[in-house]
Amino acid sequence: MEQIIYGINPVMEALRAPDTKVKEILIAQGRKGNLERILQLAGEQHVRVRYRAGNDLTALAKARFHQGVVAMVEDYGYATLDRIIDRWKKSGIKALILVLDSIQDPRNLGALVRTANVCGAHGVIIPRDRAARITPIVVKASAGATALTPVARVTNIASTLERLKEEGIWILGAEAEAETSFFQQDMTMDLAMVIGSEGRGIRPLVLSKCDLTVSIPMRGQIPSLNASVAAGILLYEVIRQRLMI
Amino acid sequence: MEQIIYGINPVMEALRAPDTKVKEILIAQGRKGNLERILQLAGEQHVRVRYRAGNDLTALAKARFHQGVVAMVEDYGYATLDRIIDRWKKSGIKALILVLDSIQDPRNLGALVRTANVCGAHGVIIPRDRAARITPIVVKASAGATALTPVARVTNIASTLERLKEEGIWILGAEAEAETSFFQQDMTMDLAMVIGSEGRGIRPLVLSKCDLTVSIPMRGQIPSLNASVAAGILLYEVIRQRLMI
Repeated sequence: MEQIIYGINPVMEALRAPDTKVKEILIAQGRKGNLERILQLAGEQHVRVRYRAGNDLTALAKARFHQGVVAMVEDYGYATLDRIIDRWKKSGIKALILVLDSIQDPRNLGALVRTANVCGAHGVIIPRDRAARITPIVVKASAGATALTPVARVTNIASTLERLKEEGIWILGAEAEAETSFFQQDMTMDLAMVIGSEGRGIRPLVLSKCDLTVSIPMRGQIPSLNASVAAGILLYEVIRQRLMI
Repeated sequence: MEQIIYGINPVMEALRAPDTKVKEILIAQGRKGNLERILQLAGEQHVRVRYRAGNDLTALAKARFHQGVVAMVEDYGYATLDRIIDRWKKSGIKALILVLDSIQDPRNLGALVRTANVCGAHGVIIPRDRAARITPIVVKASAGATALTPVARVTNIASTLERLKEEGIWILGAEAEAETSFFQQDMTMDLAMVIGSEGRGIRPLVLSKCDLTVSIPMRGQIPSLNASVAAGILLYEVIRQRLMI
């Protein structure tokens, strides 16, 4: 199985990222400029480079904004839950795991994995069904973070949370109705943060597994934030609190 | 003033977006297939549909990739800078204004206006040139916030910041290289927060007008956050600090 990555930065990130095997790079015929670094990295890694008509690249990428560069990459290698737990235990820092209960929009998923990487989270957990999975649009929106931060795809989020609890990790859910504001809640312990889907929030069964819930105070008329913005706000409050101890 | 939108998805978004008035739809003569949904929505909203030569559509759209569908949409009602300042003065709370120095991506712009609304900001300021403006895609990504939070489009961001300073507002720039972390900086005074473009950050002339700059500490390998996520993190730190006083 292979995946298609497109755009200068995503292809560059794929070439730079560990655990990502770029099998081939296709460049639009007549494409000029800005490719030196990609060609150099491809050369160093013995990745084959071929030139194709721009329309062929559009058909492959299923998108027009490929900037004349497409890479064939081995299909996304989902991590296991064990790998994320292991990564936390070896890190020597408090657990920070992002659990996404059914994000639908690939750009949101990409931005969420990007934020998870930037704030040093140990991994991201997504459900196998009825949710966005890691596709090239997600890889692009993640700015390459999908190749750096492990993403596990699990059959059952609720039982996954039970497993994390057994490891001593607290489960914190972001919930619009929660009485506690996020900055009133101590978040310095080992933590898995659950973010719900764009329209519906966290599903009831998953919510029932949360040890704590927090809300983000709203002061306008629009009743909710974009899911990736909400997660960024909460994750950085965790970072802030941990740095302030 | 009206805006011209083209392509199947953008026209569909315009018809679906709240607070967007589609005045007329033009379809290329001989155009077949894939238009049922657009024609249905147009019918429901009593939007006039006319058929024109494909070349006329190309001339109107100033682009060839219009897919045979062009819509004339009432232009977004931008606010003046004075209206935003006035809104702050009448609000009785500390100023919170979001200044976007050249956001390119319409979904980012939409998410930013949405976040500005949710956190109760007095307004959003964007530049007239070389930046995304309010289109139906932005309206949709904003979840309707573009109709609730005033957005001013100014010719010169630098001189706009000078004007805000004259009003006693502090200018805070988000800058990756800033030595001060955002949570080390007091942000309880009247504030305009400047967020740079996705790839390049704040332009030097605009940066030179900032009284303060703050960075978001990064702990992963990806060197930056999505612009709307970064703005959400900073705006909510302002909210947190103001609530904690």
